[in-house]
Amino acid sequence: MNFNSKVLENAVNELSRFPGIGKKTALRMVVHLLKTDKLVVNKLAQSIIELKEKIGNCTICGNMSETECCSICTSVNRQKSLVCVVKDFQDVLALENTGQYNGVYHVLGGLISPMDGIGPEDINLSQLIHRVKTGEINEIIMALSATMEGDTTAFYISKVLSAYNVKFTAISRGISVGGELEFADEITLGRSIKDRIPFNS
Amino acid sequence: MNFNSKVLENAVNELSRFPGIGKKTALRMVVHLLKTDKLVVNKLAQSIIELKEKIGNCTICGNMSETECCSICTSVNRQKSLVCVVKDFQDVLALENTGQYNGVYHVLGGLISPMDGIGPEDINLSQLIHRVKTGEINEIIMALSATMEGDTTAFYISKVLSAYNVKFTAISRGISVGGELEFADEITLGRSIKDRIPFNS
Repeated sequence: MNFNSKVLENAVNELSRFPGIGKKTALRMVVHLLKTDKLVVNKLAQSIIELKEKIGNCTICGNMSETECCSICTSVNRQKSLVCVVKDFQDVLALENTGQYNGVYHVLGGLISPMDGIGPEDINLSQLIHRVKTGEINEIIMALSATMEGDTTAFYISKVLSAYNVKFTAISRGISVGGELEFADEITLGRSIKDRIPFNS
Repeated sequence: MNFNSKVLENAVNELSRFPGIGKKTALRMVVHLLKTDKLVVNKLAQSIIELKEKIGNCTICGNMSETECCSICTSVNRQKSLVCVVKDFQDVLALENTGQYNGVYHVLGGLISPMDGIGPEDINLSQLIHRVKTGEINEIIMALSATMEGDTTAFYISKVLSAYNVKFTAISRGISVGGELEFADEITLGRSIKDRIPFNS
């Protein structure tokens, strides 16, 4: 596409770096920006710059944080012996929004995927091993996605940490609450009957 | 959603102002930015600021332009007596990319839509009337979408300018090149048979 303007082309190129955003969507975003008040646009640009300047990774768990250690790791109300291993910061948000979890997290920042050339050393794993070695961790909950990569990563973690006295658990899989049996995929349904639980629990 | 961080919340809110981008997509964009190199993120922010600073509307046709008059209006190779009326800057880009048009444009920036409270005074129409009054315009091509709003706007323009010696035309509608008859909608197909053209043209 020929934009007849270097400034425009630049903006479209930069915006189309976002995952899932192509040139056409980026152009639509640019047109929206051009129609928007200058103050609002500058606020957007400022918030993007601030993001990079102020947010880093928690040195303990790898979660996004404005401070050196995130608010979850420093909270006195959290059970430090219980660690939930997740892939991404979004997973922490999702779990936090349930209000059902009172332990701490460990954010891997990725999953082991030999096909994509991502090995154990490419994810935030050494820090987890360090935490298990030095800390008082009793239980590690694997909250990784039920994919080849998620399962590989969970298996690898359990192997690496098998020498330590840590209990490994995983989040339960099954039919979603409110879900209809007939619309559930067969693997989930099969797993939900295999991993059945006592009725009164 | 509780982000536990004002900076993060800000960025998500600002990004979700884009049309078609909700909080979840904005969060995904933010996570992408956090994983991206600082230089690249700053370049994005800079390109957004530049966009607002350097790009304005062409004083003649209303097209986006880095200069007072756009490169199409100032080009000596363009036929100034032929004006194509479009809704948006994207339409100019699309038509320019065909390489089939050698006239100039007039960008309305919107369509008359009484339902949305958009009247003739809310779009870039007075400038078109001014151009017809003062310039040597022979033909106006309506290249507006075939919707209620597009048709209303085209009709309004032709009425307002009926006193002037200008020929009105519209882009042709029909089955797209390479399109199958059986999959075309009936209105388009009906129109394509009504507006049939000589076979050898």
